[in-house]
Amino acid sequence: MKFSIEKATLSKAVAQAQSVVERRNTIPILANVLIEAEGDGVRFRATDLDVEVVDRAPARVDQKGATTVAALMLNEIVRKLGDGALVTLSTQGAPGRLTIDAGRSTFQLSTLPVEDFPQMASPDYTTTFEAPAPLLRRLFDKSKFAISTEETRYYLNGVYFHVAQGSDGPMLRAVATDGHRLARIDAALPEGAAGMPGVIVPRKTVAELRKLLDSDEAVIKVSVSDTKIRFETPDITLTSKVIDGTFPDYTRVIPQANARRLEVDAKEFAQAVDRVATVSSERSRAVKMNLDEDRLILSVNAPDQGTAEEELAVAYGDDRLEIGFNAKYLLEIAHQVDRENAVFLFNSSGDPTVMREGDDQSALYVVMPMRV
Amino acid sequence: MKFSIEKATLSKAVAQAQSVVERRNTIPILANVLIEAEGDGVRFRATDLDVEVVDRAPARVDQKGATTVAALMLNEIVRKLGDGALVTLSTQGAPGRLTIDAGRSTFQLSTLPVEDFPQMASPDYTTTFEAPAPLLRRLFDKSKFAISTEETRYYLNGVYFHVAQGSDGPMLRAVATDGHRLARIDAALPEGAAGMPGVIVPRKTVAELRKLLDSDEAVIKVSVSDTKIRFETPDITLTSKVIDGTFPDYTRVIPQANARRLEVDAKEFAQAVDRVATVSSERSRAVKMNLDEDRLILSVNAPDQGTAEEELAVAYGDDRLEIGFNAKYLLEIAHQVDRENAVFLFNSSGDPTVMREGDDQSALYVVMPMRV
Repeated sequence: MKFSIEKATLSKAVAQAQSVVERRNTIPILANVLIEAEGDGVRFRATDLDVEVVDRAPARVDQKGATTVAALMLNEIVRKLGDGALVTLSTQGAPGRLTIDAGRSTFQLSTLPVEDFPQMASPDYTTTFEAPAPLLRRLFDKSKFAISTEETRYYLNGVYFHVAQGSDGPMLRAVATDGHRLARIDAALPEGAAGMPGVIVPRKTVAELRKLLDSDEAVIKVSVSDTKIRFETPDITLTSKVIDGTFPDYTRVIPQANARRLEVDAKEFAQAVDRVATVSSERSRAVKMNLDEDRLILSVNAPDQGTAEEELAVAYGDDRLEIGFNAKYLLEIAHQVDRENAVFLFNSSGDPTVMREGDDQSALYVVMPMRV
Repeated sequence: MKFSIEKATLSKAVAQAQSVVERRNTIPILANVLIEAEGDGVRFRATDLDVEVVDRAPARVDQKGATTVAALMLNEIVRKLGDGALVTLSTQGAPGRLTIDAGRSTFQLSTLPVEDFPQMASPDYTTTFEAPAPLLRRLFDKSKFAISTEETRYYLNGVYFHVAQGSDGPMLRAVATDGHRLARIDAALPEGAAGMPGVIVPRKTVAELRKLLDSDEAVIKVSVSDTKIRFETPDITLTSKVIDGTFPDYTRVIPQANARRLEVDAKEFAQAVDRVATVSSERSRAVKMNLDEDRLILSVNAPDQGTAEEELAVAYGDDRLEIGFNAKYLLEIAHQVDRENAVFLFNSSGDPTVMREGDDQSALYVVMPMRV
């Protein structure tokens, strides 16, 4: 194998690939990136056995071939090379070594056999569709904060990505919950997505996927089977196992009859919650909301440290209500609001509360109260 | 006590003071900042018993008095207040509480008695002089990297700040070493500093001092005794115990007769060392330098990972030399060089090596080689 490639191109491809490599590996080959040169380009492939990413980059291939080297070290070396350098990678220099030449620098890295590199089996994808990057970005960005970190509830360790009946017919939907809060985000159903099986996309895959979605113009090809999901751009293919479990029936958690409506400036609200929460002790970060005729008082009482209180002018016309929430949960859902106002729908101080972004029906959040 | 103060002014003073507070305190009062209001200003005082910082800020004092509250929490609260807010701090609201009012926010923080706050005794300073901030900044910035972190050699855990005979008569000098490398930085002797006793300024004090030295125009008043050192600006007073020990006779470590001279572009050299060091294993980060007629080859050989080699055009006219260094040490001293070129003076591959910044005589570094 021998090819030459621009430093910037190489750097981008290697950086993307190495990010799926786990920092601590018991299987040495999983620390490596598989480099395959053929035709007029090179593929960089990395995996942790659950997620696989393949980056394609143009290169001048002098001799086709393949090898594997330590992904993190290759990434470090490439990052430190001078900008604008032309980099040559070759296995011809020494047996069992990859030689990297750039200007006056020469590196020789240990390789591991290509045959040992685990290839992720490709299932028969039952559904394939295309979606604009901003649509997928919104679905995952606005739901991922609610992903559970409890490993025993493994079926909550991801975003439930599925087709559901929305207010205007079938929608593409992302749901995540950890039992304390829930996010449900809808988007217009792309053509060809109607028959998609519902799948739970793991947290790590959601994070890796994010890097494919930065460009507003990108169109992502999505392929789904019962066991895997694949996201593709012309340069990158991200393939992931989905979580083998059943996502709970979240519709039963969403209150339908919460009638007490509070409308508040989302940014002002988030800042006020953040301020009053400063005095609360780490463990029980409880913020109390006192609602009365067009007035909201946020307060925290932490006997050891002190107290905090803040008053906000709001739109509220129902009975007096006193209800407490975990400050972190309140803050996180308040930060999801892209519109000016957040709308809360309460029932009683013991019931789950609904939050919406203004009059937008495509995003809905639920948060459980806590006793204060 | 009651006073009103601008948010920005308060924020700056509290941030500076709280930074000396240790995050983990077994003595509760040391987590607090002492606030004293009197006349037309307020003082914020914090200490860890070794270092004390006092910040002065203008305020409208309605009632003079003093109290102490948790420094970190006060800092957090002030930081989160809206910009431009006028903040009122008062002990009149509730017994044992400090009330903080800003706009629609009200905080009440637990206080501890002012009498319990440890005041650092002021010794009779034997030497007092004034020095421009850039002079002190250079002395400490360029020497601190060599401070030892070995607690058993406590007398090396700081910068030895003293008056010494330089090439042009007595100089103000900063020296730090950890036994593997040494930095010796000289500056013109300020008026009144000639009789200063040599003191070891602890690492933490050096870090805190840095914040007083940002402005090129600032003039710092320095007061020194055998046991304490004080740095003062109109707004801030930093007082610190000095390390109670004897700094070793560093002059014996500095080679006088190293004759083999290498001159190299400092930036190019640092980048090349950084690149080749990438392949070395964490523990023995050894970089080998091979010197021959106007040519330097930097190389690393890490059997498990691979090898790296880089060639640099340099000015060198002596015999062939092969010498190894810890990559981190080489990098750190290379990064000190403000001039274009670094000058290395070698003796043999087993002897300490001297580095200078071009032809500047006011900074000198020594680094021990390692066997490669």
